[in-house]
This record gives sequence, C-alpha cells and structure tokens, in this order.
Amino acid sequence: MIGFALFGCGRIGRMHARNIHAHPGAELVACYDVAGPAAAAVAADLGASEAQSVDEALAHPRVQAVFIASSTNTHVDLIARSVQTGKAVLCEKPVDLDIARVDACWQAIAGLHPLVMLGFNRRFDPSFCALRDRLAAGEIGRLEQVVITSRDPAPPPPGYVASSGGLFRDMAIHDFDMARYLAGEIVEVQAMGANLIDPGIEAAGDIDAAMVVMRAASGALVHISNSRRCAYGYDQRIEAFGAGGMLQAHNQHPTTVESWGHGRTRAMDPLQDFFIARYADAYRAELDHFIACVNTGAAPLAGFAEGREALRLADAALDSMRSGRAVRLA
Amino acid sequence: MIGFALFGCGRIGRMHARNIHAHPGAELVACYDVAGPAAAAVAADLGASEAQSVDEALAHPRVQAVFIASSTNTHVDLIARSVQTGKAVLCEKPVDLDIARVDACWQAIAGLHPLVMLGFNRRFDPSFCALRDRLAAGEIGRLEQVVITSRDPAPPPPGYVASSGGLFRDMAIHDFDMARYLAGEIVEVQAMGANLIDPGIEAAGDIDAAMVVMRAASGALVHISNSRRCAYGYDQRIEAFGAGGMLQAHNQHPTTVESWGHGRTRAMDPLQDFFIARYADAYRAELDHFIACVNTGAAPLAGFAEGREALRLADAALDSMRSGRAVRLA
Amino acid sequence: MIGFALFGCGRIGRMHARNIHAHPGAELVACYDVAGPAAAAVAADLGASEAQSVDEALAHPRVQAVFIASSTNTHVDLIARSVQTGKAVLCEKPVDLDIARVDACWQAIAGLHPLVMLGFNRRFDPSFCALRDRLAAGEIGRLEQVVITSRDPAPPPPGYVASSGGLFRDMAIHDFDMARYLAGEIVEVQAMGANLIDPGIEAAGDIDAAMVVMRAASGALVHISNSRRCAYGYDQRIEAFGAGGMLQAHNQHPTTVESWGHGRTRAMDPLQDFFIARYADAYRAELDHFIACVNTGAAPLAGFAEGREALRLADAALDSMRSGRAVRLA
Amino acid sequence: MIGFALFGCGRIGRMHARNIHAHPGAELVACYDVAGPAAAAVAADLGASEAQSVDEALAHPRVQAVFIASSTNTHVDLIARSVQTGKAVLCEKPVDLDIARVDACWQAIAGLHPLVMLGFNRRFDPSFCALRDRLAAGEIGRLEQVVITSRDPAPPPPGYVASSGGLFRDMAIHDFDMARYLAGEIVEVQAMGANLIDPGIEAAGDIDAAMVVMRAASGALVHISNSRRCAYGYDQRIEAFGAGGMLQAHNQHPTTVESWGHGRTRAMDPLQDFFIARYADAYRAELDHFIACVNTGAAPLAGFAEGREALRLADAALDSMRSGRAVRLA
Repeated sequence: MIGFALFGCGRIGRMHARNIHAHPGAELVACYDVAGPAAAAVAADLGASEAQSVDEALAHPRVQAVFIASSTNTHVDLIARSVQTGKAVLCEKPVDLDIARVDACWQAIAGLHPLVMLGFNRRFDPSFCALRDRLAAGEIGRLEQVVITSRDPAPPPPGYVASSGGLFRDMAIHDFDMARYLAGEIVEVQAMGANLIDPGIEAAGDIDAAMVVMRAASGALVHISNSRRCAYGYDQRIEAFGAGGMLQAHNQHPTTVESWGHGRTRAMDPLQDFFIARYADAYRAELDHFIACVNTGAAPLAGFAEGREALRLADAALDSMRSGRAVRLA
Repeated sequence: MIGFALFGCGRIGRMHARNIHAHPGAELVACYDVAGPAAAAVAADLGASEAQSVDEALAHPRVQAVFIASSTNTHVDLIARSVQTGKAVLCEKPVDLDIARVDACWQAIAGLHPLVMLGFNRRFDPSFCALRDRLAAGEIGRLEQVVITSRDPAPPPPGYVASSGGLFRDMAIHDFDMARYLAGEIVEVQAMGANLIDPGIEAAGDIDAAMVVMRAASGALVHISNSRRCAYGYDQRIEAFGAGGMLQAHNQHPTTVESWGHGRTRAMDPLQDFFIARYADAYRAELDHFIACVNTGAAPLAGFAEGREALRLADAALDSMRSGRAVRLA
Repeated sequence: MIGFALFGCGRIGRMHARNIHAHPGAELVACYDVAGPAAAAVAADLGASEAQSVDEALAHPRVQAVFIASSTNTHVDLIARSVQTGKAVLCEKPVDLDIARVDACWQAIAGLHPLVMLGFNRRFDPSFCALRDRLAAGEIGRLEQVVITSRDPAPPPPGYVASSGGLFRDMAIHDFDMARYLAGEIVEVQAMGANLIDPGIEAAGDIDAAMVVMRAASGALVHISNSRRCAYGYDQRIEAFGAGGMLQAHNQHPTTVESWGHGRTRAMDPLQDFFIARYADAYRAELDHFIACVNTGAAPLAGFAEGREALRLADAALDSMRSGRAVRLA
Repeated sequence: MIGFALFGCGRIGRMHARNIHAHPGAELVACYDVAGPAAAAVAADLGASEAQSVDEALAHPRVQAVFIASSTNTHVDLIARSVQTGKAVLCEKPVDLDIARVDACWQAIAGLHPLVMLGFNRRFDPSFCALRDRLAAGEIGRLEQVVITSRDPAPPPPGYVASSGGLFRDMAIHDFDMARYLAGEIVEVQAMGANLIDPGIEAAGDIDAAMVVMRAASGALVHISNSRRCAYGYDQRIEAFGAGGMLQAHNQHPTTVESWGHGRTRAMDPLQDFFIARYADAYRAELDHFIACVNTGAAPLAGFAEGREALRLADAALDSMRSGRAVRLA
C-alpha cells in the first residue's frame, strides 16, 4: 500500500485524488493546496489529512509518493523537494515552461536517482497504447508517417493564456510527446501557426491553431494538427502509416448509439467534452503504472527526460513558426 | 449484338431501356406499352421503333430477346408468347400473384426449354453478390443464421395495394428469394404481420409491417424484417452468421461524407430513395448476366423456378400469419 | 453507507463483491458460499467477514442489503429469507426456472412490500439505456419494430446445460426482458429453435440457436436472434425502428484501433469475450441504482415482476417452438 | 451532340474514349496516338475513325472538342493547335512540368478566349464535390483547417520517375489543386520530403513521401500527406474543419461487406486499386461538365489557370523542401 501526498486540489487534482483512493494498492494520506478550502474538501471527502504546508505533507510518515497537480510554476520546486525527502514523484505535465529551469531541476536531483514520472496521460490511453504496441510488434512494418489530430473543445479562459506558455508548450506538448512515443527521436521541426478562433488569444500573443511537420531520426514524418476549438467535442486521433498498412486510433464516443432518420444516418452523439472524461481510463492506467514502478523500481514509461524532450520540441516549433525555417535538432 | 423488345415503358421500363441502350452488346429494337405515349417517348429518346402491338414487336426480325417490365397481370401471357416465338425472356418479378397461373405458364412453355430469367435484381447487387460468393467460398464456415432487413422508404399509393398481392407477394418476394439464394431450400415458415403505418393499407386488407422466421433444409434459420415506411431511405441489409463468424452487407450511402458538429458526430446523409437509385449497379449487372446467358446458353442465376419458389414462400408466410401456425413445406 | 451480505462467491459473485467494495455508498460486510474457500477468499481480499451460514450473514447488524449471486436453485429461498429478515435484495437473474416456484416465492413475501431487484444488467448498459431513453423521449416516434441480437461467444460446459433451464430460460431471458424494457408488454410469441452447434447440447435436450418473433400490446413487433457460439466474441446489439427512423446500439470494441493492410481495411479486434467484460459499466450502474433505491425507497427499474414476466416469455417461446403455434399471452 | 477527337489512346485515354462513347451528348469521332495500334484498337472498338496525324484529327468536320490524354510533354503543343483550330479542349493534368512553357502556351492562346479545361478529376468526385458544396453552403462555418491524405497504391515504374517532374508536380499536383478548390488562394508553403519506400526513386533524384503545410489567403491552414505506396489500396481522403465542426470525405470501398470472425471485426476489403476504379464516377462527371460548358459557354470548374496555379504550388513545395524555408507566394 503506497501512501500518497497530493499537491494541488483543483479539478484535475480532485480526479487524481479519487483515483488514488479507489486504487487497491494506494492510499491518499495527505493533500495540500494553496487554497486551503480545496484541500479541505478533498481531505474530508476521501478521509485524508489536510496538510497546512508542503513540508507537513512531505513529513507525514506514511507518505512514500507525491502526486503534483498544482500550477505549472510550482512543479520544479515541488519535484525537487519531494525527491530530496525521498519520495517517488508523479507530476502533471509540463515540468516547466522554461527549459533552463527544467535542466536546473534535473541537476539538483539527478544524483539521487529519483523516480520521477511525468503525467503524459495519453501514453496510457488503451487505444493509443494498443496502437503503439502493435506498431512495435511490427503489424504494419517500418513506420513511415504519423498524423496526430488534437483539438480542444473550447479556448481556455483569457487569463490562462498569458501564463500558459502558449499553444505549443501548453497544449501541443502532449502531441510532441506522442510523436516521440510513436516515432522516436525527432530531428527536424517545421511549424505554422494561425489566429482563427479567439481574438483574446491573439491579444495575449499566442496562436489558436497550428500545423506542425517533423522528421524523426528513423526517417518517419510526423504531422500534428491543433485547434483551440472543436464544435463536436475533444478530438483526439492518431494515424500511423507504414510499409504494411495503417493503424488508426479513433475518437471514443460516449455510447454506441447511432441515430437514423429524416436527414441523417449513422449519427452519433458529440465526443466527450474534455480530458477528464476522455482520458478517464488513461488516468487510472497511468496511476497504476506509477504504483507498479514504485513497487518494483522499474523506470516509468514517461520519465523526467520525456518532459524535457517534449518541451524542447515545443520550443523548436515556436522557433520555426517565428523564423519560417525548419529547425534542426542536434 | 442482342436485339431487345421492351414491354412496359413506365418508370422501371425506361430505366431498363437506358441500360439496354448503354450496353455494348445490346440494342433496343422495339418497345411497346399499352399507353402509347410512354412507348413513343422511349422510342424517340433512344432511337428504337415504337411497336403498335406485342405481336408487332415480337415479329421484328432483329428482336432476339424480350424484357418484360409491364404490369404483373400481363407477365404470364407475355412470357408465353415471347417464348413461343423463340425469344429469350427477362421478366420483372413476380411471375404472377397466383401460383396456379404460374404453373400453367410453365406447363405451356416447359417443352420449349426456354431461357426465362426473373428480375431478382438483388442477386446482382455487388455487395449482396460478394457476400454470397464469400459464404459459398467458406469464409464463415457452415451457415447458421441469416437476418434480412428490407424497408421501403414510403407506402405505395392506395390504388396500388389492392392489386399488389399484398406485402408478402409484392415486397417481401425479393427477401424470400434472397433467403433461398443464401440459405437454399426453405422447409418451414412462421410469419407475423402488423398494421402500424398506413390505415389505407389496412383498409385494403393488407399489412404494412412483418417479421418472418424460416428454417432451411440445411438447418439454418432465416429472419426477415419488413416495413412499408422508413424515414431515412430504402433500408436494405443482410447479415449472415456461421460457425466461423459473420458477413454483413450494409446500406449504401450516396457519398462518403460525414458531418461532425454541435450535437452530432459521424452523421451521413439519408440513403438512396428507392430501388432505381439503390440498385442501379445491380440492374446493369442483371442485364449483363442475361445477355451472357443468351450468348452462351448458360442457365440464368434466377430462372422461372426461382420466381415460382419465392411466390410459394410468400403464400406460406400469408398462411402462417393467418393461421398462427408454422407452415411446413414439402 | 449500505452494508451488504453477498451470497455466492463464484466468478460473478467476486465481481459484484469488488463493485460493492469500490462503491462510495456501500460496504461489503459479510459473504457466504457453500464452498467455504470461495467465501474466504473474497472476505480476505476485501476485508469482509466470512459467514459460516446464510443465517449468520443475515444476522450481522450492519447488513441491510443482500446480493444473491449463488446458483439459480437457491434464489427463491434466499430471497424469501432475506426479505423476511428485513433486507433489501438484489438477485441475479433468473428468479427460478419454474414459474410456480416464482409465484410461491412472491406469495410468501408480497405482504412485506419488499425491495427486490433483479439483476437484468443490460437495462443498465449505458448504450442500451441511452437508446431506451431516447426512444421514450420520442426521437424516432412510435416504436414499430425491435431487433435484438444476442450471441454468446461459446457454448456452456456440458454439465451446465442440463440444469440451465434451456436456452430460452437461461440465455434468452435477458432478451425477453429487453423486449419488455423497450416495447412494453408482450401479447404473442412465435419461436423456432435449432441444433446447429454443439451435439452435447442436443443430447441434453436443449437447442443452441433460436429465432423468436413477438408482438407487443402496443402493436410493435420484436425479433430476437440467439446463438450459443460466436467466433468474434459476445455479440450484443439492439435496433429499434419507429415512424421517424431508427436507433441502433452497437457492440463495444475493446479499443478504437483499426487496422488497414494487405487484404483488409477498417478491421477491429474481436469483441469483449463475455458478460463480465462487456457489461462492466452496466454492473456498476446496476449496483448504483439498487443503492439509490435502498436509500430513497424508489422502486427498482427491474423488480421481482420483471423476473417473473421474462420467465413467462421464455416458457411461451418454448411452448411455441414445441407446438409450432403462435402463443397468445392473456 | 459534341464530336470529339481523342489524343492519346493509352490506359487513361481508352477510359476517356469509353466515357465519350457512352455519353448521350457526345460522339467519339477520331482518335490518334503516336503508337498507331493503340489508336486503331480504340477506333475499332468504338466505331471511331483512326487519324494518321494530329492535323487530320483536328481537320475532321464533326470534331468540335479535343480530349488530350497523351504524354505530358505533348500537352502545350496540342492545347495550342487545338485552340487555334477553334476547338474546345479538355486536357489531362498537368499542363506541363515547366511553368515557363505553361505561360508561353497561355500567351499564345489567350487572345482566342479559349475553352480549356484541366482534368482535375477529383473536383468531380461525388463525395469531394459534396464536401465542397456543403462547405460553401456554410455547414461548418468559416474554414479553418484542411487535411488531405493522398497515397498511391504502389510506386511508379522506375523509368517513369525521371520524366515525371517529381512527386510534387506529378502526384501531389492533384492535392495542391484540391487545396485551392477548398481553401482558395494559397500564400505560404512549407514542405518536407523523405525517401522511405523505393531506392529507385531516390536514385532518380525524387522523394517518395512528403508532408506539406500551407496557409491560405483566408487564413486557413492546409496539410497534405503523400506516399508512393499504400498496402491497402489507393488512399484518398479529405477532412475540412471549421468553426462549426468538421466534414470528412472518406475512402470508397468496393462493396459494403464487413467480415467478422476469429481475430477480426468490421473488416472490409482493400480499397480500389487506383485512379481508374476509384474515380470512375468522377471521370464521367468531369466529361459531363465539360460537355455542358461547350454547350452553354460557361467557364469550366477547372480552367487553364487552375493548371498553372497547381504547378506553382508544386514548385513552391519543392523550393521549400530544398531550402528548409517557408515559401511565400505573392
């Protein structure tokens, strides 16, 4: 039974808290949030203790692992403090928006050979996972092209954009990680961005739609389409193409019901609204994987390095978009 | 080049006329309709001669084959006269609504060893045809169950129902033939009918919805669902189930376009409106098969006997519906 | 927090035990099985107490509700004893194989106005449930036809068949209940059975494939196709057809991955193997509904009467199959 | 009745010849090919006259229109001569591989205000056409992103590549035209190419896979994925995404048959092998549109200018691929 401290009790933190509680091999011991009432609510709901500080949570004798679901700018500090008190860490993406701070964090903890896992939930989605396993098993031969579609249902609130790090670092970071998960190391990045949706995003200096093309060291080409708005829900698809054919992982529909009538055939309902519903199974599998790593000492499927590399691709895309040049990565 | 006489220049007759005209191995020589202007229009449009009588059409020296697309009550007479003047015959279903008249017709022509083909167009639908070939090739092993769905888009006009022979003989006749095409001889029939759609049909003494279950000599069970109305178009599907799995032939959609938006995903357009659009390819293939039979002397896929057997199943279904008993066929 | 006693700790009992344990409003207090080790294992795994007898379990002060997952022949006795000790009861289907025993059971408990829910899990499947709600909301107008497909992946073990009550009472019972859930009371039943799959089933006097047609009091026609074997997994589908169109609830696929390559396009994996995987969500929703009924006093969606009526339809189907006559229900 | 001369009687020329022959408003008058027997075969098969020279064909009194299906390097000369003898012209794409020659051709004929239509067959595909009409009708609001998938079943023969103009000018030219058809004028092009499939293509100095991203003047982003090999057939899809949702045009399957069995569900057959089968309906509709333009004087949907613009995008893609820079078009 692994005891957890949870940092961050907002929407996604609460979901993780419930998953920890429901896991037969985990116990939610303590939770902390800069907003006390958020932590108090989680604590009361799930029978955990509400810590008054990070230190108090880390000092709890039954806490062996830390789940970091607080705001991005707190991640590197919390990772470092957790590792330095001997905890295993599962941290929501991204590590940080600044690669220098990411590297400094790693410098500070590398010597401790820590178990740090990044919350790249999509690696644990049953369909994406199956696609990747079948690719690895050679079902379609050598990988040649990947097309990743990733569209959020609605733009983030205006206040969020400014501190988000921008579409590439905030939203596409998952897609950059997925590119690496499927195609391996990336050596070249081209990106084009656009403002098509929300003037507030443009005013904040960010884009709201993008298309990226990348080349992997293997030679494979990868495309990512992003949009900050999608009328039919959260659009998350992968298509992998190889010498022997294609594997597609499609969107999930809430039910299997089709409606046929005047003016329509085969119509299904809109997709799940957003990540908490869409990736419910993935979040549970992610936690399960982390607990298995803690128990066995195995390296997690998405470690600290994956967090750094995804950020590096986001930075390269930003550079390419601004310069109009393909960016080559050493 | 096979010369054709066409009897009946209504909607379906005009379609057959165009198909004959477009076929590289066929020529539309003469056409006749009790309504003179209908025949005149076809003749003018396609460069054929308008016959003033059946005899005139049959006497034309270039006429080798006859296409009968006139009203059902004329079929047996036209078949007999065509055969007796040495023509090959392709006749729209059904042969007749009365099995005694069907048998008398055959008595009159059997000695001539005629080439008579019945227009069971669905046997020539590329998808149903592929399903049947794959079944015959053993793709799913021994056939165990068949489910046939057959729904017309809208009820026929009131005047039509009274002389139609009723749902089983008029509409389901195609499904009875399909049952035999896929499962072989039928030995037992159960049927349940209902009046759910059109009070005019009930007033005319007919049903407008039905469900039939049959047993084949092979042991396979066959289900047919019929309705005289279908909001999303002409619903025509087959499902065949065997020891090794299932083959399904689905509806055809006019385009491959899917619409995704507020309140819908994967929505496609309604199906083709009715048989002329839905079975356009099938009607061409049916004609092509008939021409090949004329040229080679091969027996057609659907001969006179198929017309008789389908009618016999329709009669058995009517008997079962009225008696509430399963009807066993010798 | 509702305290449960569980009777029957076999495969399905263990699944229910885990669902009770995971439910935030339920507690697994005691469990009992005629095979002691089965109960001991569940008790140890989930921190419940292992009862040495039914009486001991029912006497436990924290037990308010009983989950009956033991063999069918124990159901009526356990229902009666549980109700007589004031418990709410959730019982796996069927109530019993003999309608006289079912009625006797009800006679014995009716005066106590018990809360007895039957485990017709399919009523709680998210897709079937959505189909039914949308039907009730009028999405396709008046219901005219229903087609229910229900095929088990593999025949039951030989020993099971003899005591199962036969295909209609054991397997199709779910489909009879679904027919009533969607179309309301049934007034006429026709059935045809066949032996196509397993000689052992025939030797045991049972059939292994069936097709049923029924008429509802509303006039709607309902078809059920059953098979004891299905090469591609557990085939569970519903199609409801009305004046305004059609609603279909399709099979669930384990992932959304499609494979395209030499000789195939759009190929997906086989379906879930059987009911525990296929109806995992449904079993959780069923338990949740029962707990809500216990807490609020509301009548369950599937009460004792639903168990009796489904059995009555199964008996009528058997009668029709044997007599070759449509059976009318008063 | 429009009389046609056909130049080029190879595989695609023969298909066009049959379509002209079958069209009720067209007549194949004369045909010519540098390989005499090819022209002789078409002439004999369809009752046309075999011309011994281009001039002879153009001089035929019943020839009003010319269909150019000969090799690319003959196009500009044949367009000019046909226009100068007063014919309407339907020419297979591309106009030429060299934009200077394209412009010189136009210079020579512009003053004659010719009717020259380019054979961009995909604009006439019923599904792509419907997608575009529905886009134009506002079904998904303002267009934001387009994803075009275009994969040939197998690499061209080695000899073909050297004179083909390369993947962008030879194969992707259709996709560049489709981009303009859907998104309007293009102002920026990024491209990445790769050699993943056929060493012979690399040896010939060409690529065999590519990913392109473009920006339209409207702001919309467009992605194209190309491959010279596709194990499951000719992969041709379009996805258009806008403020109100998404329209997808999917691949066409030869039949609607799905196979379900051990190890597979929903499996369909491979796609049509290549363009002649895949775009059979489109080629007929293209011819029909051309004939309507000849009859009415309307401007064709794809005129000479469309041929030039598609080539210009191909050239820009090549430039971007080589320079690693986004190419801006004036």
